[in-house]
Amino acid sequence: MLAAFAKSQSADDPLSGLEVGERPDPQAPEGWTTVRLRTAALNHHDVWSLRGVGLPADRLPMVLGCDGAGVSEDGDEVLVHAVVASPGWTADETLDPRRSLLSEVHDGTLAEVVAVPRHNLVPKPAGLSWEHAACLPTAWLTAYRMLFTNADVQPGSTVLVQGAAGGVATALVQLGSAAGLRMWVTSRDAAKGEQAVALGADRAFENGARLPERVDAVMETVGAATWSHSINSLRPGGSVVISGATSGDAPSKAELTKIFFKQLRVVGSTMGTRDELERLARFVVDAGIEPLVDSVMPLADARDGFARMVEGRVAGKVVFTV
Amino acid sequence: MLAAFAKSQSADDPLSGLEVGERPDPQAPEGWTTVRLRTAALNHHDVWSLRGVGLPADRLPMVLGCDGAGVSEDGDEVLVHAVVASPGWTADETLDPRRSLLSEVHDGTLAEVVAVPRHNLVPKPAGLSWEHAACLPTAWLTAYRMLFTNADVQPGSTVLVQGAAGGVATALVQLGSAAGLRMWVTSRDAAKGEQAVALGADRAFENGARLPERVDAVMETVGAATWSHSINSLRPGGSVVISGATSGDAPSKAELTKIFFKQLRVVGSTMGTRDELERLARFVVDAGIEPLVDSVMPLADARDGFARMVEGRVAGKVVFTV
Amino acid sequence: MLAAFAKSQSADDPLSGLEVGERPDPQAPEGWTTVRLRTAALNHHDVWSLRGVGLPADRLPMVLGCDGAGVSEDGDEVLVHAVVASPGWTADETLDPRRSLLSEVHDGTLAEVVAVPRHNLVPKPAGLSWEHAACLPTAWLTAYRMLFTNADVQPGSTVLVQGAAGGVATALVQLGSAAGLRMWVTSRDAAKGEQAVALGADRAFENGARLPERVDAVMETVGAATWSHSINSLRPGGSVVISGATSGDAPSKAELTKIFFKQLRVVGSTMGTRDELERLARFVVDAGIEPLVDSVMPLADARDGFARMVEGRVAGKVVFTV
Amino acid sequence: MLAAFAKSQSADDPLSGLEVGERPDPQAPEGWTTVRLRTAALNHHDVWSLRGVGLPADRLPMVLGCDGAGVSEDGDEVLVHAVVASPGWTADETLDPRRSLLSEVHDGTLAEVVAVPRHNLVPKPAGLSWEHAACLPTAWLTAYRMLFTNADVQPGSTVLVQGAAGGVATALVQLGSAAGLRMWVTSRDAAKGEQAVALGADRAFENGARLPERVDAVMETVGAATWSHSINSLRPGGSVVISGATSGDAPSKAELTKIFFKQLRVVGSTMGTRDELERLARFVVDAGIEPLVDSVMPLADARDGFARMVEGRVAGKVVFTV
Repeated sequence: MLAAFAKSQSADDPLSGLEVGERPDPQAPEGWTTVRLRTAALNHHDVWSLRGVGLPADRLPMVLGCDGAGVSEDGDEVLVHAVVASPGWTADETLDPRRSLLSEVHDGTLAEVVAVPRHNLVPKPAGLSWEHAACLPTAWLTAYRMLFTNADVQPGSTVLVQGAAGGVATALVQLGSAAGLRMWVTSRDAAKGEQAVALGADRAFENGARLPERVDAVMETVGAATWSHSINSLRPGGSVVISGATSGDAPSKAELTKIFFKQLRVVGSTMGTRDELERLARFVVDAGIEPLVDSVMPLADARDGFARMVEGRVAGKVVFTV
Repeated sequence: MLAAFAKSQSADDPLSGLEVGERPDPQAPEGWTTVRLRTAALNHHDVWSLRGVGLPADRLPMVLGCDGAGVSEDGDEVLVHAVVASPGWTADETLDPRRSLLSEVHDGTLAEVVAVPRHNLVPKPAGLSWEHAACLPTAWLTAYRMLFTNADVQPGSTVLVQGAAGGVATALVQLGSAAGLRMWVTSRDAAKGEQAVALGADRAFENGARLPERVDAVMETVGAATWSHSINSLRPGGSVVISGATSGDAPSKAELTKIFFKQLRVVGSTMGTRDELERLARFVVDAGIEPLVDSVMPLADARDGFARMVEGRVAGKVVFTV
Repeated sequence: MLAAFAKSQSADDPLSGLEVGERPDPQAPEGWTTVRLRTAALNHHDVWSLRGVGLPADRLPMVLGCDGAGVSEDGDEVLVHAVVASPGWTADETLDPRRSLLSEVHDGTLAEVVAVPRHNLVPKPAGLSWEHAACLPTAWLTAYRMLFTNADVQPGSTVLVQGAAGGVATALVQLGSAAGLRMWVTSRDAAKGEQAVALGADRAFENGARLPERVDAVMETVGAATWSHSINSLRPGGSVVISGATSGDAPSKAELTKIFFKQLRVVGSTMGTRDELERLARFVVDAGIEPLVDSVMPLADARDGFARMVEGRVAGKVVFTV
Repeated sequence: MLAAFAKSQSADDPLSGLEVGERPDPQAPEGWTTVRLRTAALNHHDVWSLRGVGLPADRLPMVLGCDGAGVSEDGDEVLVHAVVASPGWTADETLDPRRSLLSEVHDGTLAEVVAVPRHNLVPKPAGLSWEHAACLPTAWLTAYRMLFTNADVQPGSTVLVQGAAGGVATALVQLGSAAGLRMWVTSRDAAKGEQAVALGADRAFENGARLPERVDAVMETVGAATWSHSINSLRPGGSVVISGATSGDAPSKAELTKIFFKQLRVVGSTMGTRDELERLARFVVDAGIEPLVDSVMPLADARDGFARMVEGRVAGKVVFTV
């Protein structure tokens, strides 16, 4: 089958290890099944794999990709949940220390066919397009869990998103505003703030700006550069949900005193569960949310999509059609 | 000042005890303040007071009304929170056994001026009209707490509302659909089901209909007539939130076995907190929700509004302008 | 191997279908393993299976038993978790609609060897005796989840247990008092109330007695006969956790009005998770709890234990040594 | 009346500003009442007040003390809850940004009489001694809330307490072990670790020691010196509850990556609610917990108690009898 896979790894030149070509069809062990993909999408995770981060070299070649949607062996249209729990695990799979993401241990979704545990199939709602379906299983699922499972907010609450332009941040803005949350964003770049407002944010602020009032929750994926601002922006009892630290994870001030005196909650979040993905898919289609798509191209042109991402030119999801 | 008040009570002829006329201005004890009302709205609670339910005769005359909005002594535009906690209570006021609603112990909102604890003022968001502001503090607040505090659902969850046409049910449909919940309703009357769909419900069913799939939560205000259907409609681990039992509160089957075997949660809910009202007001205006209004009339014509309610002719809120 | 198994079923004479004799050793499919049992214990569930309740006749012969402890293939001392999730299920296994208990689909623990999913092994703490270990996986786990997962109480809270003498009720009293909860019990029989006090209850009351103060939570396994008393005994915001209805599940009053007006929570509960069993085992040994044991006998004499249970003569667990 | 009060403040010589002498009896405004104290106890908070931290000079003279128990105007034996909410506040009082502790705005408990809001009286359980009653409202309440409201643990869970010897840490060990939690402590000083074990800890470790297994929750009052160890010691999904940072609040590594990747929760906690204090008092007496007392002396000798605390010689509570 055709697939985009890591053949080798290079920290400096990740594209050098990417190959788009033939790989053997995956086999489904007991309890697993296969999905014939219609669309797949790109994540920074795929570039890290090519750089040698998170993917040991002895597992190469490895088909990349953890976002995908397609048709199951039974003919059903499905999204592919990318978190693979260890056998027998019976709890939230994101807490399983031996879990993996597709493309870390098992071949991923940038291919004609992917094998996954049968339980990882999620029905694709009828009204959801193939392009949008492929956007949901990774960054959007991460955003869904941050906001709706971990932030402890209700419609009418105010939520601050640090760093308006990232993939998770974009999903947070689109999801939160469609769910009745008042979404505020910060950004170094006024244009990116304006884009966030166009996607549903209530207001955009400069990085570090003093806000008109304290917020109920902050969504953090930036880390060191915004940490003190996040803590200072919260009302007593508020929450900061963290799912990344792109500017570094060691702020000069951890702000422990403010955390305990204001009784804040800092909640770590990563990926999401199969059931959260099912609700996300239904929410997106029912609320008419259109995930921001950067570009759509055939899987055979995957190298172009990777290049856009490596060069930092993407705004929204890069989607491959199979 | 002009007010609509209960002068006497009659179970059979509630209108006979209603008087629209002059009452002395209310006095604000320490910690209280006054609000000059701009709008107020009617609830079944007001008719019960005239029937002699919940309001002891020795408290008459009593100004009716627990929905209202107006201008504070400081000139701020505010909603009036109707739950009056006992002095010193420091927890959720709806759990205070000595709490009261406006018009039960203290004069209510169907008047030119109302006195309330200073803490009961909630800022009216700029974009919220006076007519809509008056709709929120009672039935809409009840619906908000049911769905967003007690139902344990997330965007994309499916929620069944039993009895499409009641005041709380209407608010549930409008709030839930604006927050990304898939709202299903049941109704004895197809026209009322269609109205619910027009207000945002995803689908309407006949009473007792077998649903296409199990739901995550049920909102119950009907009681005996729908109880078994509610319990049978839930997925394992689902919730039924109950805030009324208009058809009686003793179903022939309490369904205890199904409750424990499916590990359901039955959650009682009544009114809401000041902070929930603040979030509700912001949500309504940010999401562009237009609370269903039956009619708007001057307070001087309050008797007409009461008559519509007693005769069962209202669909949505009856709002009085002051 | 030697086992106690259901050969046939009879609603009137459950012992007639019980056989204690040879059965083939169980086979462990992929992901499963075997445990060589050292002790096992009896539950009413085993008698129901012999009466034909919950166990279809076409599955006979079936080895009975869902309580057991023994030595794993790796030589570890383990408790056997009895809830078998369906393949790939990644959430609380007690919410899996296709789960089963040992002895419902797969052979149970009243045997020399049992096969279970590898994930169902729970380490036996060093200080826990084999007799006590066998007591925990069913009735005690049920009690643990009721009190510590579902009741929403804290040390110093007051908990009412309806029906002092049942197996789950006994475990509730022993667990709750060891965790700092003030345990009150009701009983038709003063002697059983006294026994509960001897096991750690703070006070015992007659059925339906007016309590000195409202309680924070009620543990219900009785159902119809005690339901109104349970609801009336709760403080506003309190919880009733239900895990059985031995007197019937259709009380004449479901008490819906009191449930919503006092904002009560009714929480269904059944069995528990693997992780709850692990904490339970550690708690029992660390707190020095001695589960009430009715009698200990060799598995070869299992018929005597079944007879005691059918005749209603047991107080505490009947434990078999293998 | 006799009282211990701050007459002036000195960062270097806190005792110089302490006076034990006559002060006017406090007056109770509307909604308040007075308590004739029988016992009171000392906290570091009282020394900070004398150093000029948290107590503005223009409020002097101020009666010190936030721990106390005595007899109400109605003749009831009561504990005094020290958190004074702002008028009309109807939610958790520890989240009220305008709350104060006794001795910050209103005169405190180191006196013959104290005035407090009537709602702040908590019944003293019959079996609780006056000496122990005075120990509970501040450090013990803080520990209770950390463990039982914020840590998300159950009996059988393992909890690590950083810094075995502090006042809150001692209370954590005594409370946790009595509630069925497996309490582990760390300490720079082996003797203090042994003392913790004598008070109920399961094991004591050196600071920074590698633990035999990951824990469910960590109780942090040390801060910078132990932060990385706390984060590294937690299982996925575990909690660190923080209520102080005696070694500084800016660890060199905030560990944000580990927090999000392991999905940890960091929960700030300070003081507790009136209802938590009521449960704490009942728990202490029912479970037979004997709060560690350093010394008991008459209020007239309060200077001796302050001196012991300033010199770092206390192990347990310093209690004053009135």
